[in-house]
Amino acid sequence: MITEAAILNVRYGMEQEFENSFRRASKIISSMSGYLSHELQRCIEVRGKYLLLVKWEQLEDHIIGFRQSEEYQEWRELLHHFYEPFPTVEHFETVPNLTGGD
Amino acid sequence: MITEAAILNVRYGMEQEFENSFRRASKIISSMSGYLSHELQRCIEVRGKYLLLVKWEQLEDHIIGFRQSEEYQEWRELLHHFYEPFPTVEHFETVPNLTGGD
Repeated sequence: MITEAAILNVRYGMEQEFENSFRRASKIISSMSGYLSHELQRCIEVRGKYLLLVKWEQLEDHIIGFRQSEEYQEWRELLHHFYEPFPTVEHFETVPNLTGGD
Repeated sequence: MITEAAILNVRYGMEQEFENSFRRASKIISSMSGYLSHELQRCIEVRGKYLLLVKWEQLEDHIIGFRQSEEYQEWRELLHHFYEPFPTVEHFETVPNLTGGD
């Protein structure tokens, strides 16, 4: 299991429109092979900043399976014009014993 | 419920020592009032980069309850010397219907 993580900065004043588009886009990502879960969270301190976390079974499910799919074109059209600057997306893996609670 | 999120950049070559210290430090944070869960994940693309996510019942549990506690002094001593640069910590809240899966 890996986590795709990105800080998204949405253009000023477009936050509501972005959230509405993301609701549509989330149906796309949720249907992909290897997708496990996602969270989009809104920053309390900085307007227009969001944290996107997507859990995938393995790295390739995101960087090959999703990014090379037809569905990704639809995802891009729904979301990419909201971002300024364009986000850096990175992947993270769990380190044994460094997770707790719940 | 809110999420505390930070990208941590650990000094080159100190990654293993940091992970060991974090295991000790995680016992501190896990015992705090309002703490729900945490994850420390290691970046796949960039050596020494980590994603820290801590879920708290409410913002004040972190910024007042934890940061003004004696336990925070111990947390700082265990961890802060590993970071370069010192991380920005921000807080995020769930937006209705922007979370899914699992």
